[in-house]
Amino acid sequence: MTPPASLADCESLDRCDPFAETRQQFRLKPGVIYLDGNSLGALTHASIARTRAMIEDEWGRDLIRSWNVHGWFDLPLKLGARIAPLIGAAREEVLVADSTSVNLFKLASAAMMARGKRHRIVTELGNFPTDLYVLQGLAALSSGAIEVVAVPREHIVASIDSATFLVVLTHVHYKTAELFDMVAVTREAHAHGARILWDLSHSVGALETDLHAAGADFAVGCTYKYLNGGPGSPAFLYVRGDLQDGHTPGLAAWMGHTAPFEFSDNFAPAAGMARFRGGTPSMISFASLEGALDVWEGVELHEVRRKSEALSELFIARLDALTGCDLSLASPREIARRGSHVALRHPQGYELMQALIARGVIGDFRAPDVVRFAFAPLYLRYVDVWQAVTILSEVLDGLSRTEHLRRNAVT
Amino acid sequence: MTPPASLADCESLDRCDPFAETRQQFRLKPGVIYLDGNSLGALTHASIARTRAMIEDEWGRDLIRSWNVHGWFDLPLKLGARIAPLIGAAREEVLVADSTSVNLFKLASAAMMARGKRHRIVTELGNFPTDLYVLQGLAALSSGAIEVVAVPREHIVASIDSATFLVVLTHVHYKTAELFDMVAVTREAHAHGARILWDLSHSVGALETDLHAAGADFAVGCTYKYLNGGPGSPAFLYVRGDLQDGHTPGLAAWMGHTAPFEFSDNFAPAAGMARFRGGTPSMISFASLEGALDVWEGVELHEVRRKSEALSELFIARLDALTGCDLSLASPREIARRGSHVALRHPQGYELMQALIARGVIGDFRAPDVVRFAFAPLYLRYVDVWQAVTILSEVLDGLSRTEHLRRNAVT
Repeated sequence: MTPPASLADCESLDRCDPFAETRQQFRLKPGVIYLDGNSLGALTHASIARTRAMIEDEWGRDLIRSWNVHGWFDLPLKLGARIAPLIGAAREEVLVADSTSVNLFKLASAAMMARGKRHRIVTELGNFPTDLYVLQGLAALSSGAIEVVAVPREHIVASIDSATFLVVLTHVHYKTAELFDMVAVTREAHAHGARILWDLSHSVGALETDLHAAGADFAVGCTYKYLNGGPGSPAFLYVRGDLQDGHTPGLAAWMGHTAPFEFSDNFAPAAGMARFRGGTPSMISFASLEGALDVWEGVELHEVRRKSEALSELFIARLDALTGCDLSLASPREIARRGSHVALRHPQGYELMQALIARGVIGDFRAPDVVRFAFAPLYLRYVDVWQAVTILSEVLDGLSRTEHLRRNAVT
Repeated sequence: MTPPASLADCESLDRCDPFAETRQQFRLKPGVIYLDGNSLGALTHASIARTRAMIEDEWGRDLIRSWNVHGWFDLPLKLGARIAPLIGAAREEVLVADSTSVNLFKLASAAMMARGKRHRIVTELGNFPTDLYVLQGLAALSSGAIEVVAVPREHIVASIDSATFLVVLTHVHYKTAELFDMVAVTREAHAHGARILWDLSHSVGALETDLHAAGADFAVGCTYKYLNGGPGSPAFLYVRGDLQDGHTPGLAAWMGHTAPFEFSDNFAPAAGMARFRGGTPSMISFASLEGALDVWEGVELHEVRRKSEALSELFIARLDALTGCDLSLASPREIARRGSHVALRHPQGYELMQALIARGVIGDFRAPDVVRFAFAPLYLRYVDVWQAVTILSEVLDGLSRTEHLRRNAVT
């Protein structure tokens, strides 16, 4: 598809956008073009309503009884079932609980305890830090029984061997948006008898992720990015159905017990995903996520991906037309290798982003010189992306004038 | 102090109650006597307001920038500093993060990695299940390097030996409310060169807990009971100042890094309590807790404990006057050995509690035969306790009539 060539073209596309109505479900601030939905998604009206109802009508009125009468106790499984179709999983394979970090620990520790004679975890250097730190912590606790091997992306596949029990990778790279081929890498892991754990934090809600099609073993992901669950909203974890009963988390808590209200002295894991529950969940953050998931009812993931591709291709095409600036693409140019954000390098990346934010174009900065722009198809319009590049161009002009003046002042 | 002998006496006490004003800060349901504040505290007006502000005014308007401009990033430390005076800790010794279970894992794993040649954790049989499960999980991950010894309460002190690196105890027992002598048991642990970790879930907000006076090493606790943070509100953890830099959690996540926004490949712990931070925290649940903590401004803990004692002594004194019922005390009778709830045994405990709840007296049931009644001094009145026993007495009469009829029908 050729990107639109004018603001009028963008307006036309917005008029026939399948998500034009969906956008109405968000509470967006006028004058802001929000390109940071991969860091913190936008607020929905349903999140406001659901959170208020839980606090005032449930907690405030029914107090402790709300755990039963308002279904709080089952909410982690219920929300998991709603996320499942967004990642190509069955309803009973997904649970919402804790943070991505804690869920990663639960799954990696479960894989470690079921590892047999193998002793190696393979992951990527430059993976999102929490993923690396969690694995490092697990290795430290194992008293030397396992090791973590982190290698550059191009060496991942070659590093998976017969000593590897687990491969841990992030599907869409948090900084560059580079995609792993989930099907191919999962096949490689399985060919060596290893399990694979995919971090879907930057995938869910933006790509047509299909864990079943890939045959993936484990996954975790975050709900406060493209799923708009709210700041730090609880994360999810996935265990393929046939693996659930053979895996028990090394961080086990009372709600994961098969009979939590018997208050037994020894941990006996619940059947299925419930064994991966933690302690008492932060229900008010769950309420916000519950509301946010309403937006996804009836949404077709291939439409989401198609619009994400169109928006980011428009962005890059307009950037290509800018001349004489120090911008370079830090993401793969080929859309098939890229998630839903675009990373750029600029020597004055920090100043650039500050100036953009001052003009209402919100992305983010990652040291030392990367600026990121995310394209959330459910609430972004083609005109937003068009205008963002217009403003970016003006800001770059301003930066180069300032830089020119600075240099002249110094010399 | 002699308990009040009539409803009129109770009304007098309520008029000069130092917390009469405090009660106004709660949104209480008329007609309900809430005696389950040790399971889920009551809703404050400030929680409603603070949560709404974070969602609508901060997230909704300032989006990702809220992490800085609204101080979200620092909230876990800021709320820790507000909880510190409630447990006898310094402001920089307490952090709010994750759940009690996860925080217990962080601290027990930190102690394990700093243990030297010791290999044993001592805890109590019948401790709250999460505490046991977390320690069992840690031992399983250690590849046999450590063991967990759980013994009955009367054998705890004798079980602490030169192989023990950590003692993990719950200050107030979740079921019976029996108190440990924190000063004496901490001294015993230290005499054997072991560290001690106190679970303060049923203490904070109800007792004059003083970690410094006891010389305690570590603590965790829950904020959704007497602190009224909301369902599953985030937990806290405490590490004595001089121990912080020598202890690193085995579950480390990106926000605990010394420079999280450098996104480094290797975990380098932040100075102080920040190293115990987890992944991105569930901020909306933090907001609810932040509001709830307003109630504690200016509250004197000795007044809290004094009222807690008076309410529970009134409850027991009136129970003593009931004749011919099958109730027995499952809590210590001596107030100095009891926390802020009272547990009773009754052969029809479940039916008893259901009938009480139907009459607006809300406590809870713990299998097989225990009913619990908690006394939260900030929002409960003497008249509430008086009325609760009046209703309990009527319910018991009804139960025994039903039981009498049932027996006659059977024979």
